[in-house]
Amino acid sequence: MSQHSPSYAITVRLRYRDEAGLLGRITTAIGEEHGFIGAVDIVGVSQGQISRDITINASDVEHGQRIVERLKQIDGIEVVNVSDRVFLMHLGGKIEVNPKAPIKTRDDLSMAYTPGVARVCKAIHEDPESSFSLTIRKNTVAVVSDGSAVLGLGNIGPRAAMPVMEGKAMLFKEFGGVDAFPICLETQDTEEIIETVARIAPSFGGINLEDISAPRCLEIEERLESMLEIPVFHDDQHGTAIVVLAGLKNSLQIVGKQMDQIRVLINGSGAAGTAIAKLLIHSGVKNVVVCDSRGAINRSRDDIGDNAIKVWLSENTNHEGASGPLADVIHGHDVFIGVSIAGVLKPEDVANMADDAIVFALANPDPEITPTDAGSHARIMATGRSDFPNQINNVLCFPGLFRGVLDVRASRINTEMKIAAADAIAAVIEPENLTEYYIIPSVFDRRVAGEVASAVAETALATGTARRKRKMAFQVV
Amino acid sequence: MSQHSPSYAITVRLRYRDEAGLLGRITTAIGEEHGFIGAVDIVGVSQGQISRDITINASDVEHGQRIVERLKQIDGIEVVNVSDRVFLMHLGGKIEVNPKAPIKTRDDLSMAYTPGVARVCKAIHEDPESSFSLTIRKNTVAVVSDGSAVLGLGNIGPRAAMPVMEGKAMLFKEFGGVDAFPICLETQDTEEIIETVARIAPSFGGINLEDISAPRCLEIEERLESMLEIPVFHDDQHGTAIVVLAGLKNSLQIVGKQMDQIRVLINGSGAAGTAIAKLLIHSGVKNVVVCDSRGAINRSRDDIGDNAIKVWLSENTNHEGASGPLADVIHGHDVFIGVSIAGVLKPEDVANMADDAIVFALANPDPEITPTDAGSHARIMATGRSDFPNQINNVLCFPGLFRGVLDVRASRINTEMKIAAADAIAAVIEPENLTEYYIIPSVFDRRVAGEVASAVAETALATGTARRKRKMAFQVV
Repeated sequence: MSQHSPSYAITVRLRYRDEAGLLGRITTAIGEEHGFIGAVDIVGVSQGQISRDITINASDVEHGQRIVERLKQIDGIEVVNVSDRVFLMHLGGKIEVNPKAPIKTRDDLSMAYTPGVARVCKAIHEDPESSFSLTIRKNTVAVVSDGSAVLGLGNIGPRAAMPVMEGKAMLFKEFGGVDAFPICLETQDTEEIIETVARIAPSFGGINLEDISAPRCLEIEERLESMLEIPVFHDDQHGTAIVVLAGLKNSLQIVGKQMDQIRVLINGSGAAGTAIAKLLIHSGVKNVVVCDSRGAINRSRDDIGDNAIKVWLSENTNHEGASGPLADVIHGHDVFIGVSIAGVLKPEDVANMADDAIVFALANPDPEITPTDAGSHARIMATGRSDFPNQINNVLCFPGLFRGVLDVRASRINTEMKIAAADAIAAVIEPENLTEYYIIPSVFDRRVAGEVASAVAETALATGTARRKRKMAFQVV
Repeated sequence: MSQHSPSYAITVRLRYRDEAGLLGRITTAIGEEHGFIGAVDIVGVSQGQISRDITINASDVEHGQRIVERLKQIDGIEVVNVSDRVFLMHLGGKIEVNPKAPIKTRDDLSMAYTPGVARVCKAIHEDPESSFSLTIRKNTVAVVSDGSAVLGLGNIGPRAAMPVMEGKAMLFKEFGGVDAFPICLETQDTEEIIETVARIAPSFGGINLEDISAPRCLEIEERLESMLEIPVFHDDQHGTAIVVLAGLKNSLQIVGKQMDQIRVLINGSGAAGTAIAKLLIHSGVKNVVVCDSRGAINRSRDDIGDNAIKVWLSENTNHEGASGPLADVIHGHDVFIGVSIAGVLKPEDVANMADDAIVFALANPDPEITPTDAGSHARIMATGRSDFPNQINNVLCFPGLFRGVLDVRASRINTEMKIAAADAIAAVIEPENLTEYYIIPSVFDRRVAGEVASAVAETALATGTARRKRKMAFQVV
């Protein structure tokens, strides 16, 4: 039986005669159905009847329904209402837009709106750069998706992608103090996405691209980056790569290997796999092989065609010309990084890796291999999941990264800034505290975003992407 | 000398020896320069020196500078800092995006983001309509501008338009509880605006077009309205028309005239003038003449060309075929509605109107004629300004209108709903309280938005634009 999760929590409202023993029968029934009971609240008591809300974590939707059916069978118990906590939380959306100052008086109105606002408009008209200090551009990022590659759900379209983008906006604010707004696009055409994002850019200080499928996402990001005055960042590529690099650096400290000596196999040649390969190469890894579903990508493959990603990978990785399926290629590799699909890595594959093997099995929701199956063959194991140790989660990166970028008004996010972010994430764990089960900080480690922001801002200043500080237009003396 | 305004407020930080008489010299100097002193705060005292922040309303920027220069000349006074309160208020923008629930624990994360969010995404993928209940579309409006006709400032572009759109978003929330987000577009091409708005529509429950110049704004609104599943409303057109209609209805009660008997002259054939003409005709006014800068628009004019607005006006107004300049045409009219430019209406023009003349001089910031100049010739006078009685302000309409629209998930905003909004605004003032100086509620009358919302929602239900209530996907039993 899979484990209980608040992502399958239900709240059941029950009404029954307030007599001894009934609550015991209720909780026993839930326990016998393997439901995990959370809060038990009294809603009201009247005329000898008591109403209670019982929150139960189930393991999936059907499990929750079985629990409710069981409760209905208890004599004297009325199931008044069942609500799904996850859906309740999403009712009406998860973010809101608020004024930073109230508009309660005529004076408020005349400063925030007409006639006072006209002077601010004129100032920006005369100096468009001042829009980065006098409007929400100073702190606001668009989270843009076309809904083509959402989580593990695939191409579910812009409407269905909204809850993910809203969730991302919540995390931007909660962890980075960044205002983020979800923009889901009614198009999956590369040119239309590029022109649409470019046209709405005057409202934003940065663009976070999200869940756009490969290979379109690479071209979209590259071209927008060259067109716009604000940074553009495809989180599925670089966010993942940055957190992987952070985890890898700490892992190498534990196993005592050097970046330039390890052999890394990346399984998956999509957006994430390619970005990981690029960032590792920039970070000094000399031996990277990338596999797709047909095995190692090399110069001899005749099925690559004009897929720009695979052409790039064939020319810039796998210098030894490895070929064949994953199970063959993995022999002797120090590091496996999976950004592919569940179950493709077998225990014997891990056994065939070099000593002190490092396995990052990042497929979501189910990894390429579970820590249980990898067993002792892998010295260090990381996944994308919260219920195993070492969760590789982009939340460790994007809030702090954009915090730093906005703080110094960086024009773009260069490779040095990405590596600085990875180093900052890694350094949150003091070397003496590193263990095989603690190579990466918790997503709730509140130090992370601040450290990432500082490192990114400093690196932006050092590498010239930070825009100079300017005399502010509002200083009249 | 024009009057003091918080829209020209400065806060001056002064430091001086804390001895008797100096504050008196400071306030006297400000008074002699005709500055209006607001708050006087002590910032700190140390080593016999006192620092004070003095907030001063000036009448314009130069006036503020003169006051500062005067203060600098007082012996023993150091001007530490001068800040412009309006610019300070705009620093970093005026709105923020906040999570509706905190993400403090693993459980929060797994419900608002992965893995829990996936179930909500799937539900919307299966039933796209549910995006109106399970995402921010339920309560969120885009405030879209291309910056082509911003306030009275003209074509200042998207960056400079942002402070107005942010201000609008503040008012949406403050008065209507509506989440609104500003989208300023890097294009002024009709086709590009239409396609861009259509592409970002999956994130929104409604579109408020703003400060887009005529005649493009009419085509943009019409075409978007027919393309999208959400309501589209160009506030400069219909918001103005609705509030004008409200004020006119109350005015007619005072002067005892009937809608179908009055003669109305509208000066200005832009977006607002045309929308006012249309709404008045729908409301029963039979005699409407619209003037542009060349005089009355009629069927005989040969300079109208293919301007769709003027063609429509020539065919649907001015049935008597009036011609000639405003000063000629205005003779005998009961109502003048100006949406044009400052000063075009002369006192003698008002004198030439019918008895009990009603003059709405709505040019901003300076009206077609001031109440002082109109004098006793106009029985009822309204402007767009807050410093005269009877302010015609769109804030009376759009927050409540969209509140009602979103509440019943209306697919569009039809004429009946617009008239209902006008009636609701007018009805906030009980008939016995109507006077020549009180034909329209204050923008701070908190009853207005709720009344407008109720009326609009009821009318949407009655006219079939409200979408039916549906079984919610989150109810598992």
